[in-house]
Amino acid sequence: MSDWPDRRLIDLFGIRHPILQAPMAGASGVALAVAVSRAGGLGALPCALLSPEEAQAQVEAFRQAAGGPLNLNFFCHTPPTPDLAAEAAWMAALSPYYAELGLDPEAPRPAATRAPFDDAFCALVETTRPEVVSFHFGLPTAGLLARVRASGARVISSATTVEEAVWLAERGCDAVIAMGFEAGGHRASFLTDDMSAQPGTFALVPQIVDAVDLPVIAAGGVADGRGVAAALALGAAGVQVGTAYLRSPESLVPDFHRQALAAARDDGTAVTNLFTGRPARGISNRLMAEIGPMSAAATPFPTAAGALAPLRSARPGPDFSNMWAGQGAALARESGAEDVTLALARDGLARLARLSGRPRPA
Amino acid sequence: MSDWPDRRLIDLFGIRHPILQAPMAGASGVALAVAVSRAGGLGALPCALLSPEEAQAQVEAFRQAAGGPLNLNFFCHTPPTPDLAAEAAWMAALSPYYAELGLDPEAPRPAATRAPFDDAFCALVETTRPEVVSFHFGLPTAGLLARVRASGARVISSATTVEEAVWLAERGCDAVIAMGFEAGGHRASFLTDDMSAQPGTFALVPQIVDAVDLPVIAAGGVADGRGVAAALALGAAGVQVGTAYLRSPESLVPDFHRQALAAARDDGTAVTNLFTGRPARGISNRLMAEIGPMSAAATPFPTAAGALAPLRSARPGPDFSNMWAGQGAALARESGAEDVTLALARDGLARLARLSGRPRPA
Repeated sequence: MSDWPDRRLIDLFGIRHPILQAPMAGASGVALAVAVSRAGGLGALPCALLSPEEAQAQVEAFRQAAGGPLNLNFFCHTPPTPDLAAEAAWMAALSPYYAELGLDPEAPRPAATRAPFDDAFCALVETTRPEVVSFHFGLPTAGLLARVRASGARVISSATTVEEAVWLAERGCDAVIAMGFEAGGHRASFLTDDMSAQPGTFALVPQIVDAVDLPVIAAGGVADGRGVAAALALGAAGVQVGTAYLRSPESLVPDFHRQALAAARDDGTAVTNLFTGRPARGISNRLMAEIGPMSAAATPFPTAAGALAPLRSARPGPDFSNMWAGQGAALARESGAEDVTLALARDGLARLARLSGRPRPA
Repeated sequence: MSDWPDRRLIDLFGIRHPILQAPMAGASGVALAVAVSRAGGLGALPCALLSPEEAQAQVEAFRQAAGGPLNLNFFCHTPPTPDLAAEAAWMAALSPYYAELGLDPEAPRPAATRAPFDDAFCALVETTRPEVVSFHFGLPTAGLLARVRASGARVISSATTVEEAVWLAERGCDAVIAMGFEAGGHRASFLTDDMSAQPGTFALVPQIVDAVDLPVIAAGGVADGRGVAAALALGAAGVQVGTAYLRSPESLVPDFHRQALAAARDDGTAVTNLFTGRPARGISNRLMAEIGPMSAAATPFPTAAGALAPLRSARPGPDFSNMWAGQGAALARESGAEDVTLALARDGLARLARLSGRPRPA
């Protein structure tokens, strides 16, 4: 039996442990969501790289394999207007790599496809009725948001600052994810693009707890039971965990990414906009070292990825590929996602008990 | 009676609560150290802006007023070789401000004085016998360090990465401060100058705990009882607290700095090298906004401060002055330093007890 001191997320989502699997587009799918759900956490399916039809098939596969609630996750960015001059500048910045690999910069490239939440995705929500819908980069338009709420879904989104948390609370979110600067993947920021001012998890969580009257979910650096206990100590009602799942067999990351995770260091990641045009934390690689992790030349999200696609195809591996990971990557273990979830819950509770002098639960 | 689950720092330093006051050169002196000591924490005297004679007078004043142990703190940077070309470039970057204030850039300026630990300071340690000596920016030479240890002092220093923590442990430190990216003031980093890779407190503490067989002191974002409890949850043996003391009457910061702290936001600080040449976290101000918080033109520590001195004299206030603060500044209360310390201890213990379901201590 779980013995959590804060049951708000357990009751809100209908889960056994206040542990949310971070939806990681491209790195997680049905198998990971099912494993987390079976362990009593909240499984999530990221839809940013899927068509509505693909997403529907994944929801159905999840429902067949897991009885728990589902978190369906969407990006809600505004796709940028095409800008040929900016695109040319980005290609110029990458031209040494095209030359090195003998690639023709004039050859047609695939467009970067990260679809924002729209009418078709909203219809999918209305049809498949996920218990939770989560958004990244803010919230969709009021009309779409009202339809999501009318479907019965709990709505959550991520805040990287107190200001963003208040904005989300004012628009009716049921809980807010406090995404500290340690977190892997795309920064959720939507009211700021100043990466020099983003608070770390330790500072962000209590300040968001003080600012909004909602359950707060701590994200960023939570990778073992110590992190779970610390998140609750800071006032969070639970945690969202991503990187700690990336070494599981259920993770979809390629082998070179797994190898980088196995060798991860505390100081081995940086926030970079090179891979998609939007700041995201990943393991430092050749491209980040040579261009610098943040470049004014990278075109707006998600278009920057298009110019990198030929480089990644010509040289698969770490040099030109994003390897999203948070600063706690070295804490991740090579273990199944169900076991990772159970260990987070068990070790978190045991740590809390030990700190107060109570005997450890068995 | 204190009821701390981890007594390593209590025993190592002879204190009642595992709470270290951060030595804050220019912002803290005898009164703050005495107040923290009376509350059962470890009071500290920063010597970086003092002569050995001034430091000795402060130690004597502390000893008269407080019975507890004392932490005497020193910088151990290597002063840079003068570089006239770099100095001219930095003056050129600042020339619009000299023009705005009608200042003569050719007028003589005071040299920036932040003295590193040296023979004279070491003799002071040998004479005054502080119970703890702490260093910032690494450790002094092996010869000086041996003399400090021979004086009977416990030696501690700060690490901003696991690599720095291991380096400090290998050289015989008795405890290591894990300084997360949230922390105010100068980054302690000494094996890296890559600010894009500095881990946040939440990620750094458990990784340093795993890497060194020493008590770890969490710093960065610890500003109330929640932070104390979270630090222990992450595996730290205690905390070091700076910003939470800056609004106390014992703090030496000027009124404009106090006002900025009273209005502080979670996203209102950045790491900047403009004020001294070395990265340090402070409340964002005009200079940081206009030049950008990090500038390649700022001359090496501590010389960059020299060119700013006339601007600060001509316009006292926030525009051209550093206002060191961590990302938890908004959590700081306007309260006496003794009360701040007692509240950190009481609320931290209460939080740990509450999370495990035990009744709160009275």
